[in-house]
Amino acid sequence: MAEKITSRTEDYSQWYNDIVLRAELADYAPVKGCMVIRPRGYAIWEKMQAALDGMFKATGHVNAYFPLFIPESFMKKEAEHVEGFAPECAVVTIAGGKPLEEPLYIRPTSETIIWHTYRKWIQSWRDLPLLINQWANVVRWEMRTRLFLRTTEFLWQEGHTAHATAKEAVEETMRMLDVYRRFAEDYMAMPVIPGRKTEAERFAGAVDTYSIEAMMQDRRALQAGTSHFLGQNFAKAFDVTFQNEGGALEHVWATSWGVSTRLIGALIMTHSDDQGLVLPPKLAPLQAVLVPIYRKDEEKTAVLEAAKKITEALSARFSIKLDDREGVSPGFKFNDWELRGVPVRLELGPRDLTARQVVAVRRDTGKKAPIAMDALEDSLRKLLDEIQGNLFERARKLRDDNTVELSTYEELKSLMASDSKFVRAWWAGSRQDEERLAEETKATVRNIPVEQRPGKGRCIMTGAQTDQTVIIAKAY
Amino acid sequence: MAEKITSRTEDYSQWYNDIVLRAELADYAPVKGCMVIRPRGYAIWEKMQAALDGMFKATGHVNAYFPLFIPESFMKKEAEHVEGFAPECAVVTIAGGKPLEEPLYIRPTSETIIWHTYRKWIQSWRDLPLLINQWANVVRWEMRTRLFLRTTEFLWQEGHTAHATAKEAVEETMRMLDVYRRFAEDYMAMPVIPGRKTEAERFAGAVDTYSIEAMMQDRRALQAGTSHFLGQNFAKAFDVTFQNEGGALEHVWATSWGVSTRLIGALIMTHSDDQGLVLPPKLAPLQAVLVPIYRKDEEKTAVLEAAKKITEALSARFSIKLDDREGVSPGFKFNDWELRGVPVRLELGPRDLTARQVVAVRRDTGKKAPIAMDALEDSLRKLLDEIQGNLFERARKLRDDNTVELSTYEELKSLMASDSKFVRAWWAGSRQDEERLAEETKATVRNIPVEQRPGKGRCIMTGAQTDQTVIIAKAY
Repeated sequence: MAEKITSRTEDYSQWYNDIVLRAELADYAPVKGCMVIRPRGYAIWEKMQAALDGMFKATGHVNAYFPLFIPESFMKKEAEHVEGFAPECAVVTIAGGKPLEEPLYIRPTSETIIWHTYRKWIQSWRDLPLLINQWANVVRWEMRTRLFLRTTEFLWQEGHTAHATAKEAVEETMRMLDVYRRFAEDYMAMPVIPGRKTEAERFAGAVDTYSIEAMMQDRRALQAGTSHFLGQNFAKAFDVTFQNEGGALEHVWATSWGVSTRLIGALIMTHSDDQGLVLPPKLAPLQAVLVPIYRKDEEKTAVLEAAKKITEALSARFSIKLDDREGVSPGFKFNDWELRGVPVRLELGPRDLTARQVVAVRRDTGKKAPIAMDALEDSLRKLLDEIQGNLFERARKLRDDNTVELSTYEELKSLMASDSKFVRAWWAGSRQDEERLAEETKATVRNIPVEQRPGKGRCIMTGAQTDQTVIIAKAY
Repeated sequence: MAEKITSRTEDYSQWYNDIVLRAELADYAPVKGCMVIRPRGYAIWEKMQAALDGMFKATGHVNAYFPLFIPESFMKKEAEHVEGFAPECAVVTIAGGKPLEEPLYIRPTSETIIWHTYRKWIQSWRDLPLLINQWANVVRWEMRTRLFLRTTEFLWQEGHTAHATAKEAVEETMRMLDVYRRFAEDYMAMPVIPGRKTEAERFAGAVDTYSIEAMMQDRRALQAGTSHFLGQNFAKAFDVTFQNEGGALEHVWATSWGVSTRLIGALIMTHSDDQGLVLPPKLAPLQAVLVPIYRKDEEKTAVLEAAKKITEALSARFSIKLDDREGVSPGFKFNDWELRGVPVRLELGPRDLTARQVVAVRRDTGKKAPIAMDALEDSLRKLLDEIQGNLFERARKLRDDNTVELSTYEELKSLMASDSKFVRAWWAGSRQDEERLAEETKATVRNIPVEQRPGKGRCIMTGAQTDQTVIIAKAY
């Protein structure tokens, strides 16, 4: 607790690293670009997994597991896919003490090995849709890495579905995009903009890529999840056909979609402050902590006894802990739990005992208020709901306050030269225009929001008439 | 459903493969020795994970995640460890399109990278014990592989704990061995013998290895989980010390313990029969299936309506499915669910409706009995408990009936020449004696059971006086 966390205004990047390391969410690993996810960080991932897995199952998906290794020849079957992924792969060339005849790629994503396998599993329209998800580790050899946000190895889920028609596959793509939106907003308390990616930002091998984009506290965008309509590209590359109800052979239609441990980075950068981590109650491994306060020994017994009873009673409905550590002051404990992002701190002292109350302190606002002991359970429930809602509203306000509509490229360049915001603009640019945009402003087209504004306007870069608006921002 | 499953007496090995493939638990992968865990197999793993994870957390452990990659230099730090594992590792030599300066081993187990990390996390006795578990994939380049039982890549959990004293570390080793025993017996309905491994079978780098050993239906032993007391070996190799309460520096004491997807193979081989998979209710993804039976259309409406109501009512407490597939006969459905190992089949026809009953058929015994509709929930609960208990008792009887006590090596050789059983015997042999045993009988010392018989006897091989008994068997 000796060193202070760097403040956001002083050095945003350092502030982020300080929180990850000091709140013991992750640690650097001895392999370049890799990380160790520490128990406090992994506990957040477990909460995320449980919520997402439930949403996947509620939409008809089942889990499976495919191999880590992808034969080199598989990688090469889908032309765009190999171009996009092969350069950033880690490759096994020796195994069991001998050189391998065919090198094995560590999966950067599993489309190729999964579609190779689907060929065996799909013969008839009766085998469709096939709705499978996998929780796994993947490896992409990134040059510039950041804890959680971009690591060489990361944990994720990847859904891979097979459908009889393009229409069903597109519906699935949008359904899972909406699952991600709901998860981001309802659990992470992180407002997002769902939309379609431009060609330049499309997944290697997809017909269309959709993303959800969130604004971090430094006003940069973070892509928090993607859902791809793959058309028949992988079915054709791996020759996966099915007999339709009419008896004719057709290639299968595909989607894939994924979110990763990057979401933990997004969660940190959306809500945390200069005191440390701030977690939304729905994803907080620990929702409340009770700190007993006493000076004399005769106070101690009564306070601790009551504190234990309260903790026990509340633990049936909440994840709560009694901090009865000896030898550290209440003030030390307060700072410690603030750093760790526990949504509610309960304080109990001799005077509270007499007044039959507990003092509740909100992590998000710092506000203190007594709550009556005989309404503790309901009050805590209500308080946690309020915090969850407030975090979302606060993040939405930050985003909305920092979203501007611009109509000229000069304004855009001038804004991005000194600042970072979400810019809504008309856009009809080409891939080359996007490259120029990135070069000149460091910003990129994040996506073409699903919710479009009516009417038409002139493209911010080319001046061409268009009915399409986009979000432009600097991104992680 | 066309092909029959090979019977156990005809070809035990083929019977096992038939069940894995036909019940769609797993499939061969295009990479040698790897497997695809299909949704029906993965669902069993999810049930196993949930139960084990709960038991780990109840004994104070938390989850974390360490990198897949282990630098070559780490592998070499613990002499026995590198000798045991390096030859069977897969090695990454190229990443991001370039040769790596230091090759990276895919983890065969994570002691080395974890103890490298613990060095940063442990300074004082206050940091101990450190009780961490990891759910992960590991790779061991095996020559002879079998679906689930031995695959090049497999999923597992590995616990890695750090303690201030040898006594605490030994206690932890035994605590986790007992967690495995309880899981095997209470959830898998698989009786096991906990015991210590001989030197020859010890984990590379351990002071002592303990295992639980189960008997499969072909009377062979299967090692189903191991718990290792690592002494200070890894702490010394990675220089992990702590300041004890007296202020002196000491090396930390360690344990590690793991079970893997191999348990799914053990589950299959313990309970299944010539009709297909048999699953204990506590690990069955689907506990019951309701098959409606009708001939005429006017029967169909009433039967289906009642079937839906019953399924809905029961699904609050059980994992149950209504099989209302059209175009396949009830007989086809019966076979199908038997193959898939659903513990209870409920049948509902017009006459049952009139009698206000459902016919329940047990997967383990095939016995049919009507159960009254107004006691359905309690009766099903009771039936599932009975099945769980019966499977355990049946497996225990098989094992006990096939466990013999032998006192001469000639008897042992003669038995193993034509058969496979568990042999209890006095043992005081050396490593060389164990090698001779394996060569001459194909059997090995499975372990030195924790529960020893009192008294002394003569070693079955050397004739030396000893107070130690062992289990000798052919093993997977």
